[in-house]
Amino acid sequence: MSYGGLNMSRRIRRTAYTDRVEAAGVRGFSVVNHMLLPKAFQKSVTDDYYHLREHVQIWDVSVQRQVEIKGTDATKLVQWMTSRDISKATIGQCLYVPLVDDKGGMINDPVLLKLEDDRYWLSIADSDVLLWAKGLALGAGMEVEISEPDVSPLAVQGPKAEDLMVKVFGEAIRQVKFFRYARFDFKGTSQVIARSGYSKQGGFEIYLDDSALGHDLWDTIWDAGQSFNISPGCPNLIERIEGGLLSYGNEMTRQNNPLECGMDDYVVLDGSIDFIGLEALQKIKADGITKHIRAIIFEGEPCPTCAKPWPVMADDNKNIKIGEVTSAMYSPRLEKNIGLSMVDRDYWNPGQKVTVECVDGLLRKGFVSKLPLSE
Amino acid sequence: MSYGGLNMSRRIRRTAYTDRVEAAGVRGFSVVNHMLLPKAFQKSVTDDYYHLREHVQIWDVSVQRQVEIKGTDATKLVQWMTSRDISKATIGQCLYVPLVDDKGGMINDPVLLKLEDDRYWLSIADSDVLLWAKGLALGAGMEVEISEPDVSPLAVQGPKAEDLMVKVFGEAIRQVKFFRYARFDFKGTSQVIARSGYSKQGGFEIYLDDSALGHDLWDTIWDAGQSFNISPGCPNLIERIEGGLLSYGNEMTRQNNPLECGMDDYVVLDGSIDFIGLEALQKIKADGITKHIRAIIFEGEPCPTCAKPWPVMADDNKNIKIGEVTSAMYSPRLEKNIGLSMVDRDYWNPGQKVTVECVDGLLRKGFVSKLPLSE
Repeated sequence: MSYGGLNMSRRIRRTAYTDRVEAAGVRGFSVVNHMLLPKAFQKSVTDDYYHLREHVQIWDVSVQRQVEIKGTDATKLVQWMTSRDISKATIGQCLYVPLVDDKGGMINDPVLLKLEDDRYWLSIADSDVLLWAKGLALGAGMEVEISEPDVSPLAVQGPKAEDLMVKVFGEAIRQVKFFRYARFDFKGTSQVIARSGYSKQGGFEIYLDDSALGHDLWDTIWDAGQSFNISPGCPNLIERIEGGLLSYGNEMTRQNNPLECGMDDYVVLDGSIDFIGLEALQKIKADGITKHIRAIIFEGEPCPTCAKPWPVMADDNKNIKIGEVTSAMYSPRLEKNIGLSMVDRDYWNPGQKVTVECVDGLLRKGFVSKLPLSE
Repeated sequence: MSYGGLNMSRRIRRTAYTDRVEAAGVRGFSVVNHMLLPKAFQKSVTDDYYHLREHVQIWDVSVQRQVEIKGTDATKLVQWMTSRDISKATIGQCLYVPLVDDKGGMINDPVLLKLEDDRYWLSIADSDVLLWAKGLALGAGMEVEISEPDVSPLAVQGPKAEDLMVKVFGEAIRQVKFFRYARFDFKGTSQVIARSGYSKQGGFEIYLDDSALGHDLWDTIWDAGQSFNISPGCPNLIERIEGGLLSYGNEMTRQNNPLECGMDDYVVLDGSIDFIGLEALQKIKADGITKHIRAIIFEGEPCPTCAKPWPVMADDNKNIKIGEVTSAMYSPRLEKNIGLSMVDRDYWNPGQKVTVECVDGLLRKGFVSKLPLSE
């Protein structure tokens, strides 16, 4: 991985846990939603990957800001914003909801938490969904209040996450199903804890309400985690690519629609729900999508950091560009470079031979694969 | 200045000039509008400050993304978004326009360029104004097209900027008045160039339309600038604070209104225009604002980087918190630390004695001053 320097300012907000993250030896950050996201600690990405698959990690994912939408028209607004049917959503459920614009382009891909019948949180990726929601509501004259509450998600990820969480929050945590949440006591406060997270290794996300409790929560998890070989961590690029977890701004932008992103299960086009972009997506579906997200597995030395898209060519023909790698990393387990790319439909079949032109100028041979790569 | 590492990814977009900026020895970046903003080169901030005041610098300010609003309802939408009267704006004019929400809170403080009667650019600070505008337009059913064009602003700042620009674009550039723009030829393309920029040293901003021309433009300015002692640069924190230039996300957020920010000249409350937040701002004005942006001048060793707000106390009374420093730097010219802070109305008179509690734990004595500090 390569790092430039990051110039700190108040605008790039510190989180409830940044002091602890620094004490734990953070080496690099990213910036998401105008806030610091730890991206590297002492371990290499490879060591971190193996650790995540075997033990448990604590991740500061406060950048997953909540956009709270509440009021008489809350359900109406949220449904208008997403292609997924939320009419049967229940309190206690988490739903992955593509947000799309009038052209069917991705605005964000948050997790929706239904807190009350007229109160929701959208746990967002990197775009100002609050402004989008506020604009829509103001323009349409909807009765809602939209705010960013003081909620700082902390993720506990890895196969030992459940046992660690039991130690802190009690046996009841085992009853929380995947993409469900329940409320648990922390030092006399009621906190939302969901079985979810940005890895495929299992785990939980604590939606800590009140950043003043941040140090206390971090320390509590950290101390309890010592017997589980806990490590400070962050979303792991190798694990994420293998798991086929997309990143908004990387694999998809407003130039992509949810069908290209493989989100078909969350796109209802039969007219049973109305939402922004319905017509556009119906047309896209009828015409057939022109590209689809795929894995690219490619040879050669471990690839450099993918900081700008790398052209993907069909076979070794430099004149036929069929996609762009937008995230990539060497997988020590597969002993190959792995990347994510939208791939043109004429070439998206698994096994299609490709050439990737990395930023280092080297041409690397590879092939198209389905997602996820992990077993 | 302190830097952490910045983990690069496609999501944090490189600009039309990043290759050149790297070749010029950039040491640190910030992230604005999901894009890289160079923030430090080889020179110290102090040396950079003196250089900017004496010579000329080239700044990659591509992060000033343009939000293009065009169509039948373009003027209506832009006016709805800002507290400033744009009805008399002319093509060729640049206007500093506070964007406010329904509570009167700052959404952004862009520069508006009127390109045609029904086509505008908002040259934005760090928030997704495109989503805000699109949301409003969709909600209200307005006939507009909203997009982010491939425009990469490059700033040429400093007292020698005009002579340098003449060398590249000809004598006509001298006729461009402050906060006006005109079109100039660059290699057969027509480019918008404004006399503007995020410093008080004078200069221009080239709104380069077509990022493929980025290297060519940078090299042309750079080569022509050699006889003017040109240096790669970026908005200078000392110069910015002395000049009283606020930074969205630092000095102001949605929690601040434009009256607190000293933008009274751009807030029309007599009802002659209607905009989002009019009623809220009328009430705020009638009640009287409770705080106002001020400079804080304070003693002691050069202060550290202000990465989170520092409490400002009245006199040396720790129990009376009257503000928070949100940007700060040691000024070698004033031989004092200087910072920006919203200050409570009971304490905002120039000369008010204060104590600043910096992140290093040291208490520094100082006083309140009006802005700007520069002569």
